[in-house]
Parts: sequence; C-alpha cells; structure tokens
Amino acid sequence: MKLKIAIFFILLIGYTSCSDKTGTTTTIQGDFAHTVYFWLHNPDHSEDREAFKTSLTNFINQSPYITTKHIGVPAKTNRDVIDNSYTYSLLLTFKDKATQDQYQEEPAHKQFIAESSHLWSKVIVYDSENLK
Amino acid sequence: MKLKIAIFFILLIGYTSCSDKTGTTTTIQGDFAHTVYFWLHNPDHSEDREAFKTSLTNFINQSPYITTKHIGVPAKTNRDVIDNSYTYSLLLTFKDKATQDQYQEEPAHKQFIAESSHLWSKVIVYDSENLK
Repeated sequence: MKLKIAIFFILLIGYTSCSDKTGTTTTIQGDFAHTVYFWLHNPDHSEDREAFKTSLTNFINQSPYITTKHIGVPAKTNRDVIDNSYTYSLLLTFKDKATQDQYQEEPAHKQFIAESSHLWSKVIVYDSENLK
Repeated sequence: MKLKIAIFFILLIGYTSCSDKTGTTTTIQGDFAHTVYFWLHNPDHSEDREAFKTSLTNFINQSPYITTKHIGVPAKTNRDVIDNSYTYSLLLTFKDKATQDQYQEEPAHKQFIAESSHLWSKVIVYDSENLK
C-alpha cells in the first residue's frame, strides 16, 4: 500500500515538473522566449547551409543556460501574414532574462557569431517574457 | 525488487515523455512552431489590451490541437537586431503541420479573429518545422 502511494507521488512529481497545464494546452518551460530568424546570403548553397547548421547546433547543444530549443526551417504554409523568406529559425526559452543574458555572453555564443555571421545577410530577434 | 524495477521504468517513461534531451538542452515538444507577433493600434490603451488578452487566452486555452504555448510581451532587451516594437507575442507548437492546419480552421480561432482583428494594425507570422 505504501509503495502504491509512493508510485502515485513519483508520477505526480514527474508530471508537474515537466508541464504547467492550463486548460488543454501546456505552457512552454522557461518564462523568457528568444526567437531568431536568419536570412543566409546563399540560402540555396548547400555548403553554406551545412556550415551554418553545424556551427549553430554545436553551440546550442553545449549551452548550459537554455531550457528548451527548436531549430527550424520555413514550414510549407503560405498566407498573407506569413513571412517564410528566412532560411533558419531558432526558438529558445530560458528560465528568466538573467539566464538569457548569461547565454548572450557565453564564449561559445561569440564563437558561433565569429565563425558564421559572414553567412547571413539579415537577422531579426524577438525576445518576449511570459504573460503571468 | 520487482517494485524497484517498476519504479525505475515509471521514472524513465515519465522523463522521456516530457523531453527529448540533446546535450544539455531540451527540444521543445511539437515539431511545428507557429510564432505570431501582434502590433495593436493602441498599445497603451488598457481596455484594448485587456480585450485582446481575454480573447486570445480564451481561444488558446480551449484549443485541443496545441502542444505547447507561450503568450508574451516584449522583454527588456535592446540590441540592433531586436524588434521589440510589437505589443504581444504568441508562440505555439504543434505535433505536425496537419495539426496546425486543424487549429487554423477551429471555430474558436475564427471567433478570436472576428472579435479582435480590429484591435491590431499589423501581424507577422513565422511557421517553422524542426530540423531533424
């Protein structure tokens, strides 16, 4: 009986630690969202694409500050309000602004910019904090 | 002993179901990311802000298609590449494009647009699919 209770609490803790349920949807972990859209000079150049992806993923996968990540390419959607002209997207969440500030200052972040910034012609960043 | 093994597997299943670990970061659940930035006509008008937030959250919280969500306001960051001129941001993820297509067609989505589109002057949407 005690073990059944223990299993119940283990499940409960596991569930609440990985999601913040509201209605039928789940809030993304990390209150600070940092989204970046990159336009490469040569979006059809496979060597440039590979160099960019390798540099970005090497950096992102080692950062101790990021809570969640999504590295993407434009989806096959097309409406007037959609901008699908970018080459790569990066969506990151962080615990808070202070943690994102530390990520900005990481040596690996500076290395990524140093080795890849010549590949892009434009970058747009949107930073947002979760509505409470 | 059997129960110890059972608890181990329960923990393992709980852990793998809520995250896809790569290095030190966790991939956002849902392969399809849909990010929307709204510029309200009157961003300093508290009644317009409340009406927009209520309409948006009522819609988002009832949608059965969304995997994860983040409704935000511009963070207190400021660099040349950052666009912090928008009023509200919406970051959603979906299992795949087909699920996002269903969300676009929801009656509650159309109701949100019908009751709130007069409040905004501009909307930009970026849809992206996770790099595999």
